[in-house]
Amino acid sequence: MSETPLAKYRQRVIWLMMPGGDLGMVRKATRYAPDVIIPCLEDGVAYHPDAKATARRALSTFLREGGHTELGIATFPRINHPSSPYWGDDVDALVAAGADGIVIPKCETVDEVRVVEDRLSEAEAATGVPAGSVPVVVMLETARGVLRAAELALSARRGVALLFGREDFSASIGLMRRHSDSLAEGSPELLYARSQVVLAAQAAGLGSIDGASFTFQDADYMLRDASLSARIGYTGKLAAHPGHVRAIRQGFAPEPADVAIAERIVELERAALANGEAPVGGVDGMEVTPPIVDQARLLLARVNWASRVDDRLAAAAEASR
Amino acid sequence: MSETPLAKYRQRVIWLMMPGGDLGMVRKATRYAPDVIIPCLEDGVAYHPDAKATARRALSTFLREGGHTELGIATFPRINHPSSPYWGDDVDALVAAGADGIVIPKCETVDEVRVVEDRLSEAEAATGVPAGSVPVVVMLETARGVLRAAELALSARRGVALLFGREDFSASIGLMRRHSDSLAEGSPELLYARSQVVLAAQAAGLGSIDGASFTFQDADYMLRDASLSARIGYTGKLAAHPGHVRAIRQGFAPEPADVAIAERIVELERAALANGEAPVGGVDGMEVTPPIVDQARLLLARVNWASRVDDRLAAAAEASR
Amino acid sequence: MSETPLAKYRQRVIWLMMPGGDLGMVRKATRYAPDVIIPCLEDGVAYHPDAKATARRALSTFLREGGHTELGIATFPRINHPSSPYWGDDVDALVAAGADGIVIPKCETVDEVRVVEDRLSEAEAATGVPAGSVPVVVMLETARGVLRAAELALSARRGVALLFGREDFSASIGLMRRHSDSLAEGSPELLYARSQVVLAAQAAGLGSIDGASFTFQDADYMLRDASLSARIGYTGKLAAHPGHVRAIRQGFAPEPADVAIAERIVELERAALANGEAPVGGVDGMEVTPPIVDQARLLLARVNWASRVDDRLAAAAEASR
Repeated sequence: MSETPLAKYRQRVIWLMMPGGDLGMVRKATRYAPDVIIPCLEDGVAYHPDAKATARRALSTFLREGGHTELGIATFPRINHPSSPYWGDDVDALVAAGADGIVIPKCETVDEVRVVEDRLSEAEAATGVPAGSVPVVVMLETARGVLRAAELALSARRGVALLFGREDFSASIGLMRRHSDSLAEGSPELLYARSQVVLAAQAAGLGSIDGASFTFQDADYMLRDASLSARIGYTGKLAAHPGHVRAIRQGFAPEPADVAIAERIVELERAALANGEAPVGGVDGMEVTPPIVDQARLLLARVNWASRVDDRLAAAAEASR
Repeated sequence: MSETPLAKYRQRVIWLMMPGGDLGMVRKATRYAPDVIIPCLEDGVAYHPDAKATARRALSTFLREGGHTELGIATFPRINHPSSPYWGDDVDALVAAGADGIVIPKCETVDEVRVVEDRLSEAEAATGVPAGSVPVVVMLETARGVLRAAELALSARRGVALLFGREDFSASIGLMRRHSDSLAEGSPELLYARSQVVLAAQAAGLGSIDGASFTFQDADYMLRDASLSARIGYTGKLAAHPGHVRAIRQGFAPEPADVAIAERIVELERAALANGEAPVGGVDGMEVTPPIVDQARLLLARVNWASRVDDRLAAAAEASR
Repeated sequence: MSETPLAKYRQRVIWLMMPGGDLGMVRKATRYAPDVIIPCLEDGVAYHPDAKATARRALSTFLREGGHTELGIATFPRINHPSSPYWGDDVDALVAAGADGIVIPKCETVDEVRVVEDRLSEAEAATGVPAGSVPVVVMLETARGVLRAAELALSARRGVALLFGREDFSASIGLMRRHSDSLAEGSPELLYARSQVVLAAQAAGLGSIDGASFTFQDADYMLRDASLSARIGYTGKLAAHPGHVRAIRQGFAPEPADVAIAERIVELERAALANGEAPVGGVDGMEVTPPIVDQARLLLARVNWASRVDDRLAAAAEASR
């Protein structure tokens, strides 16, 4: 039985965004060994028909080269917004060139997602790509989008994840930056929206990708930020810059002490079930119950993920020598 | 006029959960003098018909002994989920044995609560228990349950409280544990869901019970956690282990400095009303207004609660000598 | 083209509340140079017909004097609740005396807002005030009001802002005060409701005014609190006491380091657009994209606001000499 798209993309943690029209930069993105590359055709490219067309061609070249696939890296280009004159051509070009999926920006209504999904169906039919095989990531990055997160998550037929776009959301909500306070406090100003997006995604069975840290230089903030993303329940996190990748790798990988506890919890369950008993008891000051065992399993799966990332980093370093 | 069930259970703060089939442990639970004991017939008992039946009998024995009632401790056993083959027998046995109420786990839909409430009505009729006299606590512990908290709170006809099940919720939402960060930061990863459950409960006039701290050993974390539960507006908190009880007793009891301020606020109101004036003025750097007076009253009621807990602890120590 | 009421009141940050019946205090409020004064006819005045009538007359005198208008200060008196016997006379008197707008307390339902809006229309017609010219601020300060924030924001036809009433909300939700913990932690107990109100307001295109800090003496807490209000996206903040004004002035004005960054970001955009390129690049460890530019613009607008406040403070000091 093949893995479902949903299960597959829930295990992809690092989503690295790059300007989609810069072939050199997109190629270089593979070196950072993200789980997914998001070449951006929207804000990453000037709002002019020529610039958009040129970017589409460069990106199609990259997708057809396929070097990322060998490294186990998926591509989910971000298309232009459904209200723009560019998105339809984006969809057609990306399906034809073999993108693994697409990211729809600034979603606020069910119809916006639907119109893109319908165009994907047409593009699949036109190019002989299996029907329904191109999944979408629904990006929420405005007050209205976050307000309707639950509705949008439930209605996306091709949805594999919600992606919380922090910077557009911050602009939309009228956030006033005070960098020193955000750095010191870990950005409590975003906690509500971050949490709401995960809850909506998870209730609909989708993955969830947190927005990028606003800084790509403050390693301590980035690590705490990624740790909180993982603790809130995000299945992944956006890197808006290669400088973000390492912190996500660290923050989503469990700490050795927690791994040791998780292994003891799983062992406690094994022993209890073997005796026909409920898996209940104390481990390291925690009362173990079935959901604690489930959490331990997720944590141990992340150990495997981190090891795959490290392998990919090594392979990418090798390939770029 | 007798106290309504709602008013009664809003004043019960410490809800101690125990495996429901272990007669020795459930009896021992009274020694910790919680306000309510939750003997668990669900995850605390192996998922096998014999184990569930044995647990039900042991728990019925405990309920009929009635020793907890003399100590002023109520019992709200947690039944199995309405989708399981066990819950109906749980309800029948518990009503017959005189449980004060029941806890329904993993509620996600209005129908799940309704089906249990209907069975309670049948069990009450069958055993001569007054109709409608057994209240329910609606447990929210999945992404879907928390998402629909407001709807579930409003629809529960026998509801006295929502109970936020943290560990199942954490497993459901895909939270990855990083104990050192959670301990250092006070678990911001749970703040949204914790807050949403209180808001939904309070808007429907129900009490609200926060989940247990994940550790039963770190006294500082447990106290800060209980303090935040009380500040968010929870009327109670779950103890998943006897080690949690003391921190809840401390965190839900006001601090002496705050008690002194509250007494001055109530006195300011008394004096203002005696003069036909609005109760407005400054106390200790706070602008006093009517809602500040209401808050002071709640705080002073908690002083009385803490004193009742201490009496119960003394009586329990005496009884177990 | 004249500025819309919405745009106008989104730029008003400091909303200072005063007991509405104390003519001396309301006059004195202008000295603190808030953007708006909220003379309170509700909780700030004893609940007795004579007291309410006297307060209404005193406030009308103040409004007709008009000294605040010369200083650029608007007045939004808080009327009594639509369920009280006082609110209709409040509305009539305030429209006749020329209030700039009104604040409706403890809104929980769409009908409560509508009934006041209808009365405003009648009062406008009766006094020759242009129809629809008196805007309302919808105050959310109960569990139900905050739960329905999105619905209330969307339905208010005259709405210019939501105002989060912290103390009534805290009383409504059953918050137990622990001052030392709230001071140390920056009141995480309010973060969910604070954030929900902004999201609802912004999704409906309204401004949002955060409640006052519970203390008017702890300068450090007040500044951190105002900073968080601004970062969450609030367009303004309530001062329940003159002691709050300075902290709001500080917390909503950007820090010099952030201003310098914002200026570089705006310059980066200018240069990119001049070259027909997307405004993308790095500034001070941040990945600049279009929403980052929008945020920089909001921040620079706040510099201008702070300078207007300082001018007003100087003028008020001059006038009161």
